[in-house]
Amino acid sequence: MSASVNRQIILAARPDGLPKESDFQRVESAIPQPADRQFLVRIIFLSVDPYLRGLMNEDAPYLQPVPLGGVMFGDAVGEVVQSNHPQFGAGEIVVGPFGWQEYAVSDGAGVRKVDPSLAPVSTALGVLGMPGMTAYFGLLDIGKPKRGETVVVSGAAGAVGSLVGQIARVQGCRVVGIAGSEEKVRYVVEELGFDGAINYKNPPGHYVERLRELCPAGVDVYFDNVGGTVSDAVAMLINPRARIVLCGQISQYNQKRLERGPRWLFQLVIKQARAEGFLVWQFADRFAEGIAQMARWLREGKIKYRETVLDGIENAPKAFIGMLTGQNIGKQLVKVGA
Amino acid sequence: MSASVNRQIILAARPDGLPKESDFQRVESAIPQPADRQFLVRIIFLSVDPYLRGLMNEDAPYLQPVPLGGVMFGDAVGEVVQSNHPQFGAGEIVVGPFGWQEYAVSDGAGVRKVDPSLAPVSTALGVLGMPGMTAYFGLLDIGKPKRGETVVVSGAAGAVGSLVGQIARVQGCRVVGIAGSEEKVRYVVEELGFDGAINYKNPPGHYVERLRELCPAGVDVYFDNVGGTVSDAVAMLINPRARIVLCGQISQYNQKRLERGPRWLFQLVIKQARAEGFLVWQFADRFAEGIAQMARWLREGKIKYRETVLDGIENAPKAFIGMLTGQNIGKQLVKVGA
Repeated sequence: MSASVNRQIILAARPDGLPKESDFQRVESAIPQPADRQFLVRIIFLSVDPYLRGLMNEDAPYLQPVPLGGVMFGDAVGEVVQSNHPQFGAGEIVVGPFGWQEYAVSDGAGVRKVDPSLAPVSTALGVLGMPGMTAYFGLLDIGKPKRGETVVVSGAAGAVGSLVGQIARVQGCRVVGIAGSEEKVRYVVEELGFDGAINYKNPPGHYVERLRELCPAGVDVYFDNVGGTVSDAVAMLINPRARIVLCGQISQYNQKRLERGPRWLFQLVIKQARAEGFLVWQFADRFAEGIAQMARWLREGKIKYRETVLDGIENAPKAFIGMLTGQNIGKQLVKVGA
Repeated sequence: MSASVNRQIILAARPDGLPKESDFQRVESAIPQPADRQFLVRIIFLSVDPYLRGLMNEDAPYLQPVPLGGVMFGDAVGEVVQSNHPQFGAGEIVVGPFGWQEYAVSDGAGVRKVDPSLAPVSTALGVLGMPGMTAYFGLLDIGKPKRGETVVVSGAAGAVGSLVGQIARVQGCRVVGIAGSEEKVRYVVEELGFDGAINYKNPPGHYVERLRELCPAGVDVYFDNVGGTVSDAVAMLINPRARIVLCGQISQYNQKRLERGPRWLFQLVIKQARAEGFLVWQFADRFAEGIAQMARWLREGKIKYRETVLDGIENAPKAFIGMLTGQNIGKQLVKVGA
């Protein structure tokens, strides 16, 4: 890596379904200079997250789309290397929407300082960052699990799901995970202490029967990261007054039009149950509380995390596509700098 | 009608899809005698309600199914004509689950006394009864409409929907109805004061565009009685933090298996919105409050109601099938006695 060049990944084409590596392109530009009230960040870790898939479409569902030819959006953690900003000094570690590149200039919008003494700085993109806050507030504030209840989480071995299950265990719940490989099932049960898990890919189907065995008292909270047929199955098992926390629908993000599935909303009527969607940003003014609690659980050993790391900004597209297809366990990161 | 005979309607066959008149059978039996702590009721009005369709299936979704050969379930209002019960006296008007028959014996379970000075006794099955409480608590407690918000209600001219829209108007909301005929559209707009309404049958489809015109500020509360394609359209128009009140899914009740439709739950994620089902019985301990408020609004002229009445217990199946296919405006009743 040359110190005078900023390697970047731009969006070269809008994906048709699942993104391909050719939808991205590597370019080089000069390292930008911060203007007044700006600072320059050298990226250390880049995060690839499911929500970025939506931003690649022309009709991005809730945020501005990435323009064609523009640097891919994405959160990253890095070190301030030069600053004309009164609140950010050289040497500080920060996390923010810096994009898929080695260097970024920022005016501080959406940027948060990271305390490197709390945990490795990469955790600012995972357990102590957006995925951690998604799990913490989504489960506790939307799902409202009570001691002794059964919590099912889909995408159980992912960055958010793996934390949801562990937080639910801390709350005294029975926790059942749904994941896409035997390795993931073993990980959440043997390493994270889930009470059970199923691999939805093998054998395919029969989710309802297999889930019913693991949830003999039904499902009180369903934390949904994936949607689709997996969620259809869980919906058949919900208890009266169940809460379905709609966090993501990753199984649907590469669909070109709305997939069709069984209409099961009447389940919510007869079970007097609720399905509620959320975006983690609605809890932004409480992130300090959430990060403090997650850091406490980390120190106490009540919460564990795993990272899947690819090296080099050039591997960001591969990391992203792998995450969308479930190749990762825990948080998928790209290591950009040292 | 002979005073010594109790004409009854029994369930003769479990319906295959939409019930047919031949699924029911008229029988005659002796007028029953009340035992100790029981009383005899002479039925005046019988109510036919959408939820009864579920009770006709062997796998009734949330209540005991009607047994084959058993008297059809259903709420009715009538007069106590003979009593061995300390709390119910001859001459009193009562409403309860008396079934499709001219006379019923009861021990008082699920029975409520009706004050005939408040309003015509038929209203104990409508605006001052279960449909009224469904509209009142479903809209106010689940939907939580705020002044100036837009409320959309499906099944807008029915027993529940017509009240939902008027209660929403009282709350200062913009109210848009969805109904199945031009007559119903005129009724809710011209007689009930809805701000707008569409006939979803003519022209078919194009719901989204037509609803968008009537809801220029989007949809904050959707009170759903019908489900299916009508709800698919409304879901596309919901605002951030919208509430979808799932009251019924009448478009689905005659399906033999779950119909398939577009998966739109991601709408709830990006709109941070909630869909919540309820059963009116969860508010049973607050019915006195609801009935008092609805009666007040009735007296003040803020709430109007209409009844569609067929005469004679022998017409109960016809009334029920008509209600399931949207033939009625307002509350569908069967007049059984004078």
